[in-house]
Amino acid sequence: MLEAKKILKAYMKAGARIETRGRVKLKNKKDFALWYTPGVGVAATHLAKHPEDARKMSIKKNSVAIISDGSAVLGLGNIGPYGALPVMEGKALIFKEKANIDAWPIVLDLPALAGAHEPEEIIKIVKAIAPAFGGINLEDIAAPKCFEIEAALQDLGIPVMHDDQHGTAIVVLAGLLNAAKVVGKKFENLKIVISVAGAAGTAIAKLLYAAGNHHLILLDREGTIHRMRAGLRGHKLDLAGFTNPPQIAGGLEHVLPGADAFIGVSGAGALDPSLVAKMKPGAIIFALANPVPEIMPAEAKKAGAMVIATGRSDFPNQVNNALAYPGIFRGALDKGVTKITQETKLRAARALAALVAKPTADKIIPDLLDPRVVKAVAKAVR
Amino acid sequence: MLEAKKILKAYMKAGARIETRGRVKLKNKKDFALWYTPGVGVAATHLAKHPEDARKMSIKKNSVAIISDGSAVLGLGNIGPYGALPVMEGKALIFKEKANIDAWPIVLDLPALAGAHEPEEIIKIVKAIAPAFGGINLEDIAAPKCFEIEAALQDLGIPVMHDDQHGTAIVVLAGLLNAAKVVGKKFENLKIVISVAGAAGTAIAKLLYAAGNHHLILLDREGTIHRMRAGLRGHKLDLAGFTNPPQIAGGLEHVLPGADAFIGVSGAGALDPSLVAKMKPGAIIFALANPVPEIMPAEAKKAGAMVIATGRSDFPNQVNNALAYPGIFRGALDKGVTKITQETKLRAARALAALVAKPTADKIIPDLLDPRVVKAVAKAVR
Repeated sequence: MLEAKKILKAYMKAGARIETRGRVKLKNKKDFALWYTPGVGVAATHLAKHPEDARKMSIKKNSVAIISDGSAVLGLGNIGPYGALPVMEGKALIFKEKANIDAWPIVLDLPALAGAHEPEEIIKIVKAIAPAFGGINLEDIAAPKCFEIEAALQDLGIPVMHDDQHGTAIVVLAGLLNAAKVVGKKFENLKIVISVAGAAGTAIAKLLYAAGNHHLILLDREGTIHRMRAGLRGHKLDLAGFTNPPQIAGGLEHVLPGADAFIGVSGAGALDPSLVAKMKPGAIIFALANPVPEIMPAEAKKAGAMVIATGRSDFPNQVNNALAYPGIFRGALDKGVTKITQETKLRAARALAALVAKPTADKIIPDLLDPRVVKAVAKAVR
Repeated sequence: MLEAKKILKAYMKAGARIETRGRVKLKNKKDFALWYTPGVGVAATHLAKHPEDARKMSIKKNSVAIISDGSAVLGLGNIGPYGALPVMEGKALIFKEKANIDAWPIVLDLPALAGAHEPEEIIKIVKAIAPAFGGINLEDIAAPKCFEIEAALQDLGIPVMHDDQHGTAIVVLAGLLNAAKVVGKKFENLKIVISVAGAAGTAIAKLLYAAGNHHLILLDREGTIHRMRAGLRGHKLDLAGFTNPPQIAGGLEHVLPGADAFIGVSGAGALDPSLVAKMKPGAIIFALANPVPEIMPAEAKKAGAMVIATGRSDFPNQVNNALAYPGIFRGALDKGVTKITQETKLRAARALAALVAKPTADKIIPDLLDPRVVKAVAKAVR
């Protein structure tokens, strides 16, 4: 891994990492008359009467807004719109490179407004700016407001997906399906501990449950989520309804011993190697916090884990939502899909898993560079 | 000019007219580790602490948002966000082609929200989405709300310019300076009638006045603006303070006879040839409504006009703000200019006019294809 100073220097040298480009010529008077005035008046008049044709004759055909308020960026927390900007720009780069989608970063300076961080403000802004986009990728928005925001935007007529939730969930499910094969256990029987029950953790739990695993236990900063816990509400109350069948109260130290898999979507160094050692033989560790995982792969291995995945590009088994979102939006844009359903996500995860013909401990998920990934996921969306 | 059917077909065939493109490679694991995760975490952490560096190491370095609510599109009126979209996309194309600026169209669906068309909503949204942009080009927003919106956004730390006002005003002043030479009159002495006193008309009046012409008369749908008129408020009250020195009440038929110049920023066919015939010899007609001008050039000429300009690419003397906005934002982005002042606009107009060494009736303004235009305007901004 490069040191921070060198990385910063590379970013400074690059300046912007994406740019725009014309798709039509603008070389002579005739070009200007067609693509600007007076020609554009014809297109404007037409779209005013037939807004549905914006999908055919404007950037709406192929564009996705990547929208964040910077309230939960990577594993770095609430670092605001400027902190979020390079992440969104990196996603825009990947959208283009992987799926030929024209994505544009929109980072929201809500602290500058009255009613900072109110979900209602974000919902309003996304609704307002939606017409020029064929899809909305919500990103790095903290739980629980991310749930309310995403739900309120499902009838916009274009797909709206909070990627921290569903992109992550799709890839985690894909990886787990193959990891189960590697350790010789049935996916449905895995005892899975998910920490923490934020945006990603909640979506992962819902998707794993939908895929047939009913042995899930989630934790937040106060410990496990169970039905007797006082003060549960919102998505956590929801989770209590279908997870933690033995209703165990306590911390990681109470639920990891004897577990088959740990899914970390929390923060740097949250998992102590001594706990990994107490898991069942053939332990599966997904340490997905970015940029610094819950436990480093070498430590997890030393503690006895058999399959280890992170979110990073510089270790094997990169469980990264970049495997999902380009294909999800590619499929949706191509087919005019307006909602990404749970069924779609299951299909996408199974399609991803199936790309690894013979899973091994170091290969449970296709590579980010695998050219089949986007096509397979896009096909699953249609 | 192409017929509408053919134009529409060309737009349908083109689909999107702009796209994104990566400016860095994303070919191998190392690239992903640098430009996505974990590398992007370093950039995110840095920008969270030093947001001012977003100008150096993100799209903010070179990006402009083109923002419209579609309330006053071209000469077509309030045709909404989808009607506005192709116009904004055309501008984005020109921004790139002319000034290598990465501009992105944002069209606002305010009718879909409560409090539709309230200036406060637009102000809030622009403030919220500003962090990822190095400049804001407000576009096709109706008067009078455009004045309030633009004024409220001047302290954003990036240049915010309503182009219908100032881009147009800069190019009109440039054209008039040269047109005066062609007809052998002093610019300061021209009796100028401006119709109507909307966004563009108001900005034109202010800039011409600042440039030394104090013989301006403006009209709106109710007739001339003068101090005795009842019910004047806002920008019209403002205009009454420095225009119409003889305080003439009435319509075009009362002020065009004996005038030297007509500046039309109203709508198709608003100027009757019989009135042109009553202007002073050497009449100057700027019929700038798009796509259909206030009077067609051939008719104006037949009625006795000496210099005729339109906003269109398919007639001589294209007085189009595309001559101004690319250079204005190029200069501002290059030099970190945060406000476009009246002084800047005067310098830009004079720089534009000076590019035509020997003005003639068919050449009062540089061509959109003239490669010197952006550089000259950008230099004037610095």
